[in-house]
Amino acid sequence: MPGRAAKQRRGQLAGSTLGALVVGQSGGPTAVINRSLLGVIREALDAGDRIGPILGLRHGIQGLLAGEYVDLRRQTPDFLEVLADTPSSILGSCRYKLADDDLDRALAELHNLGARSFLYIGGNDSADTTHRLAARAGATGYELACIGVPKTVDNDLVAMDHSPGYGSAARFLALAAMEASRDTESMRRSDPVKILEVAGRHAGWLAAASALGRRSPDEGPHLVYVPEHPVSAESVVEDVEWAFGQYGHVVMVLSENQPEPGGQVLGSGGQPRHLDAFGHAYYDSPAETLANRIRRELGLRARFEKYGTLQRMSIACRSETDATEALSVGREAVRLALSGRSDEMVVLQRQSDDPYCCTLETAPLTLVANQQRLLPPDMIPEPRGGPTPAFRRYAEPLLGAPLPRHARLKSDETGLQPMSS
Amino acid sequence: MPGRAAKQRRGQLAGSTLGALVVGQSGGPTAVINRSLLGVIREALDAGDRIGPILGLRHGIQGLLAGEYVDLRRQTPDFLEVLADTPSSILGSCRYKLADDDLDRALAELHNLGARSFLYIGGNDSADTTHRLAARAGATGYELACIGVPKTVDNDLVAMDHSPGYGSAARFLALAAMEASRDTESMRRSDPVKILEVAGRHAGWLAAASALGRRSPDEGPHLVYVPEHPVSAESVVEDVEWAFGQYGHVVMVLSENQPEPGGQVLGSGGQPRHLDAFGHAYYDSPAETLANRIRRELGLRARFEKYGTLQRMSIACRSETDATEALSVGREAVRLALSGRSDEMVVLQRQSDDPYCCTLETAPLTLVANQQRLLPPDMIPEPRGGPTPAFRRYAEPLLGAPLPRHARLKSDETGLQPMSS
Repeated sequence: MPGRAAKQRRGQLAGSTLGALVVGQSGGPTAVINRSLLGVIREALDAGDRIGPILGLRHGIQGLLAGEYVDLRRQTPDFLEVLADTPSSILGSCRYKLADDDLDRALAELHNLGARSFLYIGGNDSADTTHRLAARAGATGYELACIGVPKTVDNDLVAMDHSPGYGSAARFLALAAMEASRDTESMRRSDPVKILEVAGRHAGWLAAASALGRRSPDEGPHLVYVPEHPVSAESVVEDVEWAFGQYGHVVMVLSENQPEPGGQVLGSGGQPRHLDAFGHAYYDSPAETLANRIRRELGLRARFEKYGTLQRMSIACRSETDATEALSVGREAVRLALSGRSDEMVVLQRQSDDPYCCTLETAPLTLVANQQRLLPPDMIPEPRGGPTPAFRRYAEPLLGAPLPRHARLKSDETGLQPMSS
Repeated sequence: MPGRAAKQRRGQLAGSTLGALVVGQSGGPTAVINRSLLGVIREALDAGDRIGPILGLRHGIQGLLAGEYVDLRRQTPDFLEVLADTPSSILGSCRYKLADDDLDRALAELHNLGARSFLYIGGNDSADTTHRLAARAGATGYELACIGVPKTVDNDLVAMDHSPGYGSAARFLALAAMEASRDTESMRRSDPVKILEVAGRHAGWLAAASALGRRSPDEGPHLVYVPEHPVSAESVVEDVEWAFGQYGHVVMVLSENQPEPGGQVLGSGGQPRHLDAFGHAYYDSPAETLANRIRRELGLRARFEKYGTLQRMSIACRSETDATEALSVGREAVRLALSGRSDEMVVLQRQSDDPYCCTLETAPLTLVANQQRLLPPDMIPEPRGGPTPAFRRYAEPLLGAPLPRHARLKSDETGLQPMSS
C-alpha cells in the first residue's frame, strides 16, 4: 500500500470511536472461509461508527508485517453478495510462523493503523499467532482485542464440536466416494480397485466422512483407513484381497499420511519429501505405493485418485450448514471484540444431534493453539466396517443436506431397485 | 442369469409383436450415460406392446456373450426417477474388443432372446462393435436394428456437433480450474504453481474447456496445453517462468497424454506404462514430471492434481443441457430401431449458437467407428492465450448454465470488486 494512502487512513482513524478492525485469513483455504470474512465485514458494517476502518490483511500476518492491506469499506455494490459464494481466501493466505522478532513489529503496525481489534481466521497455527499477539499486547498495555475465528477442513481443532470448513470438505469426499464407487462397480471388469487418498495429516475426520454414503456392505468405499489406526501395507493388501472376493471390486479410502504400526507414513520408508514453514512433513503418496503393490501381488489393476486442493474448496459440493455457521462465527468474533474480549476463539458447541443444533461459545486461544484433536475411540472405523454409529450421529448433520440416492442393481442382478436413502 | 429365468423370458417373448430390445453401456462412464439409458427405457415403455422384453446387458457386450442381463421392465416404482441422477453406468460397463469369433455367438444369443433391436451406448470403439453386429446380422438375413447412442467425455467422436457426456465433464473442469485458480492465488506465497492434468488421450476438448472460466489475463488457468499442439518440457518451463513473472502465481492445465514435438508423451521417454484391451497406451503422469522440473529449475513449489474418474461423473457439476440431450439421444435410438433403421448412430447437430439449438440426426456407424475428432485449428488455444473466440462460441452453451462469478481483489489491491461475468 502506498505511504500516502496509509497516512490518509490514519488521518481518518483519528476521528473514529473505537479504532480500526483488522482481519486476516490464514492457512489452507476452504469453501466457506470467505463466509467467515463476510460475517466479520457485515457485523462490522452493522456496528456503524463504533468501528473505524475495516482493513483486510493481504496474505495474513505477512501482510501486516509488509504493510499490505485492503480497505474493506471500499467495495463495489455487489461485492459482498459475490464473496459469499467465492471459494478460497479472497484476502490471500499464508503459512508463516511468526518469529519472536516479528511480534513487536506486528503490534507497532497495528498501533500505527489505530487498530483496536485483530481478528484472525485460521486453524491451530493461526490460534498460536493470535494468542501471542494478544499476550504481547496485554503485556505492553496496548488495548487490542485479539479474536480467533476457527477454520480447517481437517476438523482437528480442540475445544469445539467441529470447525467451519469441515462439513463442506466432508460432503465433497462423501459424494466423491459414492461416485467413485458407482464408477468402480461399473468398470470392475477392467479396473476393479480404486484408491482415494484424502486430506488429514494426523486425524481421520475426513477419511471417516468419505464413507458416510455407504449404505450397505457391498457398496464402496469398502475399506477405510485413518491415521488413528495404523496399518501395514501387508494388512491393506489382505483387506483388498478379501474385499475383492466379497464384492468383485474394491474402493478404498486412506489419509494422505496414513501411518504404519511403526509410525512411519505407509510406503515412505520414514523419509519425508519436504517440510513446510511450520515443520509439517509431506510424504510420497501412500495411494501410489499401495496401487503398485496391489497390481504386483494380487494381479488386480488399481487406480488411485488425489483430489488435491479441490476437496477443500468445491462450491458445488459445499454444505449449506457449514456456510451458515462460517458466517455466524465471523459475526460473533466482531461482537466479542466490541465487548472488549481478547485471547479467545469463537467456537461451535453442539446442543443436540437431532434436531441438529450448535451454539456459539468461546474457548481460550491457548487451548486451541498448536493442539490436534484426533477421532475419539467410538468414531474410529474398522477398516472393513464403515462409519461407526457414533460417527454417523456426529457427522451427518454437518453435511448440510442428506446425501443423494443412487440407483443400483439388486444383488441377484435380475431386477433393479434404487438404494434406500 | 439362471437358465430357468432365461427360458421363461423366451417363453414371454413368443407372444410379443416386435421382439426384445437389448441395450448396453460401454467404455468409460459419464455423469449422464444413465440418462441415455433412461431415455431408451422410457421410449421403449411408451411404445407399449410394440416392444417385448427390455433387457439390459451386464457389462456391455461381455454380458451378451455370457448371457448376463437384467429385465428392465422389472423395477421398483421410483427406480427410473433415481436413475436419472445416478452417475456412472448402472448396467456395468466394459472395455472389450469384440473378436471375429464372438460375432456369431453374440448374434446367436440375440436371436435366442428374440431381439429385434440392439442399442449400444458408447464411443468410437462401441460404434465399431455395433457396426460389426449390424453388418453380420444383415449378411445372415437376421432383421436386427443396431443403433449406436453416443457417449464420451472426451468429445472426440466424428460426424456430430458434440457428444453427450462432454458438457458435464467440461463444466466440472471449468469449475475445478476456477477454484484451483482462486486457491493458488490465495496460497501463492507458499505454493505458487498448480498443474491440473485432465482427461483426453489425443484431443484437447477437455483441456480447452477447463479455461472457459478465465475472464481476464491475470486469472488462471494461465497456461493450457492440448495434444493438438505438441510442446517440449523446456518450453513449458519457460512459459511458467513468464507467467510467474506476470501474475505471481501460475495455474496450468494439460492433457494426460500431452505430446512433445517428437510425438512421445511429455516426460515419458516414449515408453507406455501399460496398454488396455483396445491397445490404448497409458503413460506416467506428465504433470508429475513437470512439477518436479519446475521445482528443480525455477525453485518454485509446484503441486499437481489429477481428478481421475471424478471428472467424468460428478453429478454436482453436471451440465443440465448435457443431461437433457443424453436423454433425448436415448429416446431417439428407440424410435429409429422401431422404424427399422440400422447401422446408424444418433447424433446431435447444431443449428444455432445463440440461442443454442441442436437437432437429432443420424450418421452411419462406419463414419464414427474407430475415428477421432481433434480440435479444429480455430479452437486450438495458444498456451498463454486462453480459449479462442470460436471455442467459446462452441463450448459455452454446452456447460448448461453460466459459470459462477467469483469475487477477486482489484489489481491495485486497495479495493475489492467482483469479477464481471
